[in-house]
Amino acid sequence: MATVNKPVKIGIVDTTFARIDMASFAVEEIKKRFPGTKIVRTTVPGVKDLAAGCVILDKKEKCGIYLALGMVGKESIDSQCGHEASIGIQVAKMLMKKHIVEVFVHEFEGKDEGELYSIFENRTRKHAVNAVLLASNPEELTKFAGKGVRQGRQDAGPIRRSG
Amino acid sequence: MATVNKPVKIGIVDTTFARIDMASFAVEEIKKRFPGTKIVRTTVPGVKDLAAGCVILDKKEKCGIYLALGMVGKESIDSQCGHEASIGIQVAKMLMKKHIVEVFVHEFEGKDEGELYSIFENRTRKHAVNAVLLASNPEELTKFAGKGVRQGRQDAGPIRRSG
Amino acid sequence: MATVNKPVKIGIVDTTFARIDMASFAVEEIKKRFPGTKIVRTTVPGVKDLAAGCVILDKKEKCGIYLALGMVGKESIDSQCGHEASIGIQVAKMLMKKHIVEVFVHEFEGKDEGELYSIFENRTRKHAVNAVLLASNPEELTKFAGKGVRQGRQDAGPIRRSG
Amino acid sequence: MATVNKPVKIGIVDTTFARIDMASFAVEEIKKRFPGTKIVRTTVPGVKDLAAGCVILDKKEKCGIYLALGMVGKESIDSQCGHEASIGIQVAKMLMKKHIVEVFVHEFEGKDEGELYSIFENRTRKHAVNAVLLASNPEELTKFAGKGVRQGRQDAGPIRRSG
Amino acid sequence: MATVNKPVKIGIVDTTFARIDMASFAVEEIKKRFPGTKIVRTTVPGVKDLAAGCVILDKKEKCGIYLALGMVGKESIDSQCGHEASIGIQVAKMLMKKHIVEVFVHEFEGKDEGELYSIFENRTRKHAVNAVLLASNPEELTKFAGKGVRQGRQDAGPIRRSG
Repeated sequence: MATVNKPVKIGIVDTTFARIDMASFAVEEIKKRFPGTKIVRTTVPGVKDLAAGCVILDKKEKCGIYLALGMVGKESIDSQCGHEASIGIQVAKMLMKKHIVEVFVHEFEGKDEGELYSIFENRTRKHAVNAVLLASNPEELTKFAGKGVRQGRQDAGPIRRSG
Repeated sequence: MATVNKPVKIGIVDTTFARIDMASFAVEEIKKRFPGTKIVRTTVPGVKDLAAGCVILDKKEKCGIYLALGMVGKESIDSQCGHEASIGIQVAKMLMKKHIVEVFVHEFEGKDEGELYSIFENRTRKHAVNAVLLASNPEELTKFAGKGVRQGRQDAGPIRRSG
Repeated sequence: MATVNKPVKIGIVDTTFARIDMASFAVEEIKKRFPGTKIVRTTVPGVKDLAAGCVILDKKEKCGIYLALGMVGKESIDSQCGHEASIGIQVAKMLMKKHIVEVFVHEFEGKDEGELYSIFENRTRKHAVNAVLLASNPEELTKFAGKGVRQGRQDAGPIRRSG
Repeated sequence: MATVNKPVKIGIVDTTFARIDMASFAVEEIKKRFPGTKIVRTTVPGVKDLAAGCVILDKKEKCGIYLALGMVGKESIDSQCGHEASIGIQVAKMLMKKHIVEVFVHEFEGKDEGELYSIFENRTRKHAVNAVLLASNPEELTKFAGKGVRQGRQDAGPIRRSG
Repeated sequence: MATVNKPVKIGIVDTTFARIDMASFAVEEIKKRFPGTKIVRTTVPGVKDLAAGCVILDKKEKCGIYLALGMVGKESIDSQCGHEASIGIQVAKMLMKKHIVEVFVHEFEGKDEGELYSIFENRTRKHAVNAVLLASNPEELTKFAGKGVRQGRQDAGPIRRSG
């Protein structure tokens, strides 16, 4: 994809709850695609700790953008936790006036562990790229506006006028 | 409709997730109806990034009003994302003390892609007009207060006293 | 009912989405009951714009209290919008440290348009009175504390000790 | 129970919507148990007005703690209102950095009006005591930590290790 | 596990509603594992009071991190209270820019009181350790990133690539 216009510093917050090391996908993808990027990383217990994790990291590191990586379990109560985590992340963005790209995978999304693994990897890698571009070169994203881009699976693609 | 009382600067934030280029409808409609309007645009990955997208754009551009354009997918988890996105947008408005006109289309709203396309277009064009008027000439909206105005479909119209 | 202790300035925000001109009920009731009251009014597209409408009006007009008038449609997605609108209004009150009396009518509340009309009128007129009293003469409301007062329908009345 | 360590000023906000005069229970209980307590009271229309009621009262009265007393109706839409009211109260506490002890009774909690009455009375009286202790003598509450204390009904009591 | 890099001051807030003395598990675990840790504790009535409890404790004690310990009852209305409590805690973290490790046990999680007891103990002890590490030695948590760590039950463990 694109080159970055300015060097980016990205903060990655992940969890011990997730069953896959999401941060490694993100770090690998960013290093490969955007070699000049500075990465800082911290780990929290679960998704509900991600918003505070970003805000606290921001106090020290002043990154240009944050990636919040988490897995939501398959029980109904897990979904509620994911919802509360997302509300926290929305408020955290407002507080920092910065993007936090939220990368959540729900455990029920994959029909088996193999599929789940590939959703984790695909979504995390693609959103890691999104995050760097948002912070450095947002015009690159505008090229894909309204194109039905997806993370975790194949793109849905655009809808044509005639239906 | 109406002429604007003062020149407006409008910020448009759209997404790569949407399956239709909503921003083009908005830009076209505004240019046609309100030629003096200044438009700035930025693109984010999905609806949950819209609130931060508006707030970050506001830091640089100080627009008078914002349009947040997004599509919500048809799964239950997509609806939850849309809900979280809307809460974020409510908080963003409070932070900026400005309107963000939220233009969300849910993928289930159309019975087929053709109908969905027309909902996207109709809702986005009408709300683009609403946004310019809110920022420049809000008395124009008061003329339609309580008239059952709709975006995306035909107006519902007013209810008469006798039922 | 009561006379007001001090002159009140009330801000009314209504919508083009509503199918009845709620603001006219409010204005008429306030003029009849509390003739010295100053009223300012603005109109937004839908319920989700009411919170920002109040906050923006407050920047210019510094009213003592606000009335947020809106209709919530009958689809499930409309209920969600109403919920998001209400959360926005809660946050707006905290920001301004002022009351916003929320007057929402759900389209499903009436069995037909005639009944719906009367709910709109009854609820709006009663809450308009509540708003003026809250801002001027709150002790008047204390006289009715715990009395099962309702807006939109007849009062439910108090529950007696013996059941 | 306990004596208070320092004189408390408590703000009570109740509603006209409730079908029982909750504030009278609170006032009576506080006067009986903690005679030196200063009480100020204000009334709002419904539960959604309680958060702003507390914040506005706090501007004038600077109480040490607040009691928010309300009834939630039995319809599904009433539950949603109660939920929005509670979110507002959470935000109000953060704004003031003070406790608001929320005393909500849902109309469906009692099988008849007699039982409902007794839930109202029991819950309000017990939480009135909680509020005074929170503001004056919080160590008293620690004595009951993890004891399954309930308001509105009998205590559930603690769970024993062996099950 | 790990030694701490710097002395930690932790604030524990628990409730009288819970049916088990969660704070004792936390205090015991912290004293055993991290002897130099300073602990302050306060008790509130229920989960909805935890967010304000942390913020108020923070005004006086300026702890590095907080533990919010609570039980959520088994009725549907209890779940809603738990949800509102969690939203409050998310906002409290943003206000303080500190972590609050939320330790909630839902009464329905255990098939009987014995199992429930063991969930309470396991979750509280593990999260107490998490809290001290978050505040003192967060790199320790990164060693377990993506490992499917659980509190309350056995770890779920990581997902392997091949499924």
